[in-house]
Amino acid sequence: MNTIVQKFGGSSLSSIDKMKTIADRVIRNRKNGFKMVVIVSAMGKTTNNLIELSNQACNAPSKRELDMLLATGEQVSASLLTMILKEKGYDSIALTGQQAGVKTTGIYCNTKIADIDVSTVKEYLNKDKIVIIAGFQGVNERGEVTTLGRGGSDTTAVAFAAKLGCKCEIYTDVEGIYSVDPRLYSKAQKLDVISYEEMKEMSQLGAKVMECRSVEIGHRYKVPIYVASSLSDASGTLIKEWDKQVEERSVTGLSVTDDVLMVTLKNIPHSSSNVAEVFTLLAEAGVSVDIISQTLPREGFVNLSFTASAKDYESVKEAMEVIAQKHSSVELEKDDEIIKLSVVGTGMRTQSGVAAKLFRVFADNQIEFQQVTTSEISISYTLDKAFKQKAVDVAATAFNL
Amino acid sequence: MNTIVQKFGGSSLSSIDKMKTIADRVIRNRKNGFKMVVIVSAMGKTTNNLIELSNQACNAPSKRELDMLLATGEQVSASLLTMILKEKGYDSIALTGQQAGVKTTGIYCNTKIADIDVSTVKEYLNKDKIVIIAGFQGVNERGEVTTLGRGGSDTTAVAFAAKLGCKCEIYTDVEGIYSVDPRLYSKAQKLDVISYEEMKEMSQLGAKVMECRSVEIGHRYKVPIYVASSLSDASGTLIKEWDKQVEERSVTGLSVTDDVLMVTLKNIPHSSSNVAEVFTLLAEAGVSVDIISQTLPREGFVNLSFTASAKDYESVKEAMEVIAQKHSSVELEKDDEIIKLSVVGTGMRTQSGVAAKLFRVFADNQIEFQQVTTSEISISYTLDKAFKQKAVDVAATAFNL
Repeated sequence: MNTIVQKFGGSSLSSIDKMKTIADRVIRNRKNGFKMVVIVSAMGKTTNNLIELSNQACNAPSKRELDMLLATGEQVSASLLTMILKEKGYDSIALTGQQAGVKTTGIYCNTKIADIDVSTVKEYLNKDKIVIIAGFQGVNERGEVTTLGRGGSDTTAVAFAAKLGCKCEIYTDVEGIYSVDPRLYSKAQKLDVISYEEMKEMSQLGAKVMECRSVEIGHRYKVPIYVASSLSDASGTLIKEWDKQVEERSVTGLSVTDDVLMVTLKNIPHSSSNVAEVFTLLAEAGVSVDIISQTLPREGFVNLSFTASAKDYESVKEAMEVIAQKHSSVELEKDDEIIKLSVVGTGMRTQSGVAAKLFRVFADNQIEFQQVTTSEISISYTLDKAFKQKAVDVAATAFNL
Repeated sequence: MNTIVQKFGGSSLSSIDKMKTIADRVIRNRKNGFKMVVIVSAMGKTTNNLIELSNQACNAPSKRELDMLLATGEQVSASLLTMILKEKGYDSIALTGQQAGVKTTGIYCNTKIADIDVSTVKEYLNKDKIVIIAGFQGVNERGEVTTLGRGGSDTTAVAFAAKLGCKCEIYTDVEGIYSVDPRLYSKAQKLDVISYEEMKEMSQLGAKVMECRSVEIGHRYKVPIYVASSLSDASGTLIKEWDKQVEERSVTGLSVTDDVLMVTLKNIPHSSSNVAEVFTLLAEAGVSVDIISQTLPREGFVNLSFTASAKDYESVKEAMEVIAQKHSSVELEKDDEIIKLSVVGTGMRTQSGVAAKLFRVFADNQIEFQQVTTSEISISYTLDKAFKQKAVDVAATAFNL
């Protein structure tokens, strides 16, 4: 008998009625002969409400206790879904992350799964129970509750599938992975299949359906990940290894990141140690830098631009004061009216001309970009916010997304 | 440095603001040089809300998952109170029942504490941390979350005090133990001190401030239990060993149980095996029988009356059908317009005349009772509901409560 790991997100579990629908879905698979492991998120907006409560309690909640607080959300939904399944006549058992054997590294709030001891889960599966596991959580070696951060329940699901050697189904509030966010581009196409690499790149570049970390685990352990709607029976998207089925398209998807901050340091005395110092200071301040560009030296000075998340501006400013104090010539400019638009496709590896086509399309439509950067399977541009919709439309049309 | 175990109930923790008040109270003791262990209940009506959610989910929630669900309530309040204390500058740590070493027997929903491994708590106390523990819960030997039932957080508190060899303070929404419930008798006096035995008897007979089980543990391990208001600084009641300080009064308190059901089985053929069968059937049906009375045999038949909780009527009726089928003469009558009034006092052991005085007072005031039963330190009467207030007034006045 084959095993499936299914994960249901908070919006699929936001009420008892929705949970009952999910229970029926699980039962359908059970009836089709599968052993079922179900990973659940917290109900609806529970996690946000708990965070809000902790913010009322204090300005800077201690991370250890925040994890202990947040972990209750998934425990609640696991218990309730199990009660529902039992009453419907299907033997089930609810497990906390700890009971399910999820061992994490020591860090709080954004921990990683160190290992999973699946012996308990296997034992219950062998007793024909449906196993319901609280996602997003585990315990570290000191038995302290730790949570996995954003997308943590997806990570739990993919990691269990990896350990159990089975497929993983992620049920969410969208019908799968789209070439472009349908809210941005109404004609966007749902993808039947996408490679791990493309999905990782799209996650990193702003697609919010799957966190990069979960896809990374899926990729490493070759877990087929099927993403579909928890509410409809429409077919979803399968994330899998790159093969002929996925190689035809040069561009698979397009994603947009809002709230990009572009910082320019003007008139830095030209020396590689000065530029190195800038990025060392930013790293020490915990600022994650994305696209970097530098002008050619002119009269002994260079201009250096980089993008970061808009929320990091205060940290950037503070870190750069050291540079400004050393070099009186340096001026700091910021532009937070910026977005990043990226196109992703494994086919770029073998098909040239994607960049050329985009440059042409942007030029034809009077879209000005500020920076451009490429990876093996993606090209990203920073653009003024004003160009966002137009750029999405013309790029999506050009690549038939 | 001495240790105190303090317990705060749900109504003292129903909002973040109230929690901040409680935190200040804990800090005051800390500043007075005590090592602090704080046991918390779930915030406000959280437990009831979770039960309501489980009732929406299904008709008969599975007990294992109900325990897992309910245990989250105390985990939430322990986390939040700890965050508040930390932000106020007091090193603290939140522990689940499991982390605090609470080991329970196997049963769900109404488990008992088998033992507490206080080594972790002691370790944190020695590091000068305030230890905040989620009450009401522990894990059984299989690592399953189990809860302690009604008054479970009090039980947790008294058990920790017993293990740590220190005193226990229970902070609640009343100012202590009263001779009579002040809602019933406005002139009721708060007791400065009461013996374990009297308190147990009063708990069993309907006083709701402390569950009998907690007092029993306190009694066994000689833990002084101080019950006081979490909101005011008014002095409370100390529950302690019976000694000269408490022996002066013949009657310490009066309590009333509402929702009493009195069942009468008329015309049972007189034989001890028939009566034995009645109570065997009731025990098998899980009905807890309180006062029993039987008429003298007359023409080979006896009438048998007993009281039980009103909620058990359906179970009683079902169990008694077996008797009715065996003996066609038997008729079942119920009276649920009944209350039980009890007076309690260790002094009854040595001072006779309490019963005589009450019989006299009831007769003088035309109060009719139906049954009477006595224990070593209490006398209980069943009365028609109509007599409730009058009986409370005259009895409280007679014994100067």
